[in-house]
Amino acid sequence: MTTSAGTAFPEEAITCSITMRWGDMDAYGHINNVEVVRILEEARIGAFGPPGGTGRPGRETEVPFFSSLPAETQALVVEHRVKYKASLEYRNIPLNAKVWVSDLKAASLAINYLLLDPVTDVVCVTAQTSIAFVSAESGRLQRISPEQKAMVVPYEAASIME
Amino acid sequence: MTTSAGTAFPEEAITCSITMRWGDMDAYGHINNVEVVRILEEARIGAFGPPGGTGRPGRETEVPFFSSLPAETQALVVEHRVKYKASLEYRNIPLNAKVWVSDLKAASLAINYLLLDPVTDVVCVTAQTSIAFVSAESGRLQRISPEQKAMVVPYEAASIME
Amino acid sequence: MTTSAGTAFPEEAITCSITMRWGDMDAYGHINNVEVVRILEEARIGAFGPPGGTGRPGRETEVPFFSSLPAETQALVVEHRVKYKASLEYRNIPLNAKVWVSDLKAASLAINYLLLDPVTDVVCVTAQTSIAFVSAESGRLQRISPEQKAMVVPYEAASIME
Amino acid sequence: MTTSAGTAFPEEAITCSITMRWGDMDAYGHINNVEVVRILEEARIGAFGPPGGTGRPGRETEVPFFSSLPAETQALVVEHRVKYKASLEYRNIPLNAKVWVSDLKAASLAINYLLLDPVTDVVCVTAQTSIAFVSAESGRLQRISPEQKAMVVPYEAASIME
Repeated sequence: MTTSAGTAFPEEAITCSITMRWGDMDAYGHINNVEVVRILEEARIGAFGPPGGTGRPGRETEVPFFSSLPAETQALVVEHRVKYKASLEYRNIPLNAKVWVSDLKAASLAINYLLLDPVTDVVCVTAQTSIAFVSAESGRLQRISPEQKAMVVPYEAASIME
Repeated sequence: MTTSAGTAFPEEAITCSITMRWGDMDAYGHINNVEVVRILEEARIGAFGPPGGTGRPGRETEVPFFSSLPAETQALVVEHRVKYKASLEYRNIPLNAKVWVSDLKAASLAINYLLLDPVTDVVCVTAQTSIAFVSAESGRLQRISPEQKAMVVPYEAASIME
Repeated sequence: MTTSAGTAFPEEAITCSITMRWGDMDAYGHINNVEVVRILEEARIGAFGPPGGTGRPGRETEVPFFSSLPAETQALVVEHRVKYKASLEYRNIPLNAKVWVSDLKAASLAINYLLLDPVTDVVCVTAQTSIAFVSAESGRLQRISPEQKAMVVPYEAASIME
Repeated sequence: MTTSAGTAFPEEAITCSITMRWGDMDAYGHINNVEVVRILEEARIGAFGPPGGTGRPGRETEVPFFSSLPAETQALVVEHRVKYKASLEYRNIPLNAKVWVSDLKAASLAINYLLLDPVTDVVCVTAQTSIAFVSAESGRLQRISPEQKAMVVPYEAASIME
């Protein structure tokens, strides 16, 4: 599939709306590169739910992957890779994020993202977050269950990083 | 008027939906008191528009008071008063903010806020921000125009602080 | 006592150095008013220690008031009052904060602050945070012990808010 | 050279002290992965100075590379790569950052970082930021001057990303 500006993305991607905040701008008047990483966190949570055991109930997410991890399993960010393609501009309407999974393994996966300007549809950011599942007690890598894995299989596609 | 939990607020208030972010929580697992002040900024901008000259166009706000200030007039925060009535909990649905104006004078006004839990309707925060209008060149207080003032008159009610 | 710019502050005040971050600036190029509240949090912690049970050991603070609260006692921010007297400018040297206590009662106190520009010594912010001590279990107000109270008595002076 | 915990880093690296903030912790009680990227920004600025034209004068940095870029040249972050090796814990003492340059070209360079726990000296984060120099007017890549380049040559070593 392609955005209206012609960027390809896999049809398996979930689309999320992410609200920018005025305070995300820095002294240059663009969304600060660090706040982009905060926006990626929101996109990840928008697509796959807030981590279980944090916050209080809100809406049911369609794919509550993170929300339904067993309490003894932690999803840890082990790597971020973020490419800034065009400066992301603050607007008082939400940006669009395309989010999908790649590199799905027994105890890890990668989340892939495109962040699109909500007016021009230009790709401002491409990014990938590698996540490992570890036991909260031992700190060791922990396999996720087949049921858990099945939740994200429909959203698996090629890695955005080559 | 009253919320479903019985809290009174003026009928002149504007209602805004404000998205909380997972990262607004602190080590105690509640929305951090500082991020509440960031949420107030979003409520102010949601009700009266982003400051003119910052960011790029999005949706037209109903009451674009801040957006339409002349470029030579700055709206400066001169005081915040924030009362934390109940801990604000992260949910993946927007909270509700009631926003209105008080103390409308030639060169200043106050923004009043109620922040409500979106599930329980409990008032978590009451707050007021005093804003002064100053000349960007001289730094002196500057009267706003009658047209500008007229934009917020429909949303004027009693101060939330006594 | 007075700053070099002539501002009076009580001799009971503790002086803290607080590092500003480049990212604390907003689209106007000044330290954002919300980040000022974050800086107040750092000043409070600089003077009276990080809340017990959070983070890992670092240096021993001189007056570890917050660090030494019993685990069952939470120190909750119940009100902030922040007056922005002059715009706070980012510099790559720490600002100076004067911090003292007022309104010391059985189950509450107020923290008072002056934030000073580290080059000009101009007072940019005066502020007060009201803190209540509550039981983590019952949520009710809880008296602090005489030993605990004795830690902050040397730093008690008049409230900054008239 | 090696840290006391045995991690190698190039002798060309600059060492910076970076203050963590209590609010950098998230609901898990560790420094949030996004705030780590904010800390990298502080490390970059600590080593090579704040971007010219932002903020006000403070101390003279030893290697004012970013501070001395001509006004018409912008240093843009084009990529971040951040590897989280161990959870970074909040302490009320600054962490240590090792910072060096690699991939120095006509119109771009990479900043490499190690973030070390200030007590255990464990490497918590390894990261790299790619920066491009562009003309503020045309938006095109712009060569930096030989004088400018000479400022960072002493701090050039191998890329941290193999």
